[in-house]
Amino acid sequence: MATLGELGETALLERIAARVRAAGADRTPGGRLAVGIGDDAAAWRVDGMQVITADAMVEGEHFRASTSSWADVGWKAWVSNVSDVAAMGAEPVAGLVALGLPASFPLCALDALYDGILEARAAYGTALAGGDLVSAQAAFVSVTMTGVCAGDPLTRSAGRAADALAVTGPLGSSRAGLLLLERGAQPDSEARRTLMQAHRRPSARVDAGLALRRLGVRCAMDVSDGLAADVRKLARASGLAARVETGRIPVAGALAHEFGDEAARLAVEGGEDYELLFAAPRAIAEEAVAALPGSAIIGALEEGTPGAAAFLDARGDPVGWDAAGWERFR
Amino acid sequence: MATLGELGETALLERIAARVRAAGADRTPGGRLAVGIGDDAAAWRVDGMQVITADAMVEGEHFRASTSSWADVGWKAWVSNVSDVAAMGAEPVAGLVALGLPASFPLCALDALYDGILEARAAYGTALAGGDLVSAQAAFVSVTMTGVCAGDPLTRSAGRAADALAVTGPLGSSRAGLLLLERGAQPDSEARRTLMQAHRRPSARVDAGLALRRLGVRCAMDVSDGLAADVRKLARASGLAARVETGRIPVAGALAHEFGDEAARLAVEGGEDYELLFAAPRAIAEEAVAALPGSAIIGALEEGTPGAAAFLDARGDPVGWDAAGWERFR
Repeated sequence: MATLGELGETALLERIAARVRAAGADRTPGGRLAVGIGDDAAAWRVDGMQVITADAMVEGEHFRASTSSWADVGWKAWVSNVSDVAAMGAEPVAGLVALGLPASFPLCALDALYDGILEARAAYGTALAGGDLVSAQAAFVSVTMTGVCAGDPLTRSAGRAADALAVTGPLGSSRAGLLLLERGAQPDSEARRTLMQAHRRPSARVDAGLALRRLGVRCAMDVSDGLAADVRKLARASGLAARVETGRIPVAGALAHEFGDEAARLAVEGGEDYELLFAAPRAIAEEAVAALPGSAIIGALEEGTPGAAAFLDARGDPVGWDAAGWERFR
Repeated sequence: MATLGELGETALLERIAARVRAAGADRTPGGRLAVGIGDDAAAWRVDGMQVITADAMVEGEHFRASTSSWADVGWKAWVSNVSDVAAMGAEPVAGLVALGLPASFPLCALDALYDGILEARAAYGTALAGGDLVSAQAAFVSVTMTGVCAGDPLTRSAGRAADALAVTGPLGSSRAGLLLLERGAQPDSEARRTLMQAHRRPSARVDAGLALRRLGVRCAMDVSDGLAADVRKLARASGLAARVETGRIPVAGALAHEFGDEAARLAVEGGEDYELLFAAPRAIAEEAVAALPGSAIIGALEEGTPGAAAFLDARGDPVGWDAAGWERFR
């Protein structure tokens, strides 16, 4: 089985560039890039408010070969960055991929990684504009994504006291799928397949982000580290506390079916669903929820210790579990 | 000594964001970012041709703690990306930093890394717009840099047969400095200090890139992997062969003083000097060389096998050594 070390950098970069060009991946919604993959930098015209984000994923930390294929890793690395652009109420345009891979990395795995990246770039109408390929002992994928915003971007800090808190769709499915994969569960039911797919191939809510901005919402973020962690981030950035009625959090039928009473906790603590969390005056939030099937109001922002969050059960009491979010380096 | 693992992600990100804001690092030449560090994405206005590049550096592959301080690593990660923007004839605007670090990484080393990044961002008038911090066994730094170009970007592929090949300044100093550092040499002479500094704190030639474009040059790249490798890349992208008269390559006085006869080879094979290599019709190249002190015409592009390069001595014979460039994964 051929490895990266056997080909060497020059041949590898040419192989990738040829594939990207053959896939027509240098096209954005606005047209072809002025300079695409293969030069010192990529170039294209932008007129207006640009948004840009960069996130990295590391083998052993963010993904494992046992629960994700390399194509899944490529897909998720791209889509998680598209999701950050969606969370600004912006339209994704083009991305760059900096890869660190061992010399022993199989060429077929590199091809699979690009399968996933190219599928994702096509699914969101984005261009693959360039990047870097370096030698590293543990694999990492660092994606930069750019987008354009037709108005002021949605921010985490724009929440106001008494704003309703809402999410654009069901939470917890990705973590549930990961649990099934880690347990070695077979995809032998529709529910299990749905949850595993939610983990391996999450979607970014670009249309929802654009709709929120059009409807007058100003405060949003994507739920990537889990609602428990992300509600606190949004509240803290807005200088407020938050209250979440856990019974109102939407969950997928497959999650309720497969995990029963655990579903609510997975919805609070699980990450990587890439739905959007937003805050807005109640009338605007209700209009947004009516416009976005699957979305729901789940609580409110309120005066209090910035970043404090209460997660309440159906009787209004704090839930009996920790409701902590995922914290890296811990 | 406190480590990243003891603080946890939330406290680390707040520490970095507070420092970036205190340094005024959310300012570009065009003004403050619309959204800076700490949200899902950064945002600012762009009107015109944008360029964008992403390069990663990995501990043990691109740098070692024995020859570079963490501040040097931060500086070089930023500046190497500024150099890619300079090579397009563009002005750098803002960058993002995705860091992978072990939980055992000392907090003081993280602070030093940001010392170097913030020094570099200030030196080039660029904003630090955001990024990511993830857990990784071996440290890596992946920087994305954006810039704006007032006209068509300089590309590697715009070279024409009979164009003169030229460089904007002396080559080989960075590699020579690395050799001295690896040998444990003391910085006990002006020459040695100059070479070590060239390795630890290289400069990007933003002004030279802008001048080249204004003077009508259309083909350029930066010399990051070494002239031997980079001449071949430029020639290949332009569908041409190249000829380099090695005696014409400018070298620093310190390099000639310290390395004597080895200087020419270091100038051909050494990388990370971040001077610009450009190709242009002879009259334009001569005008550019007259305008840019330290620059020199070193050869020409010519019909032939695309990407082939001849490195000639003073008598017009091929040099007696390999003249291969640095190739990763090998």
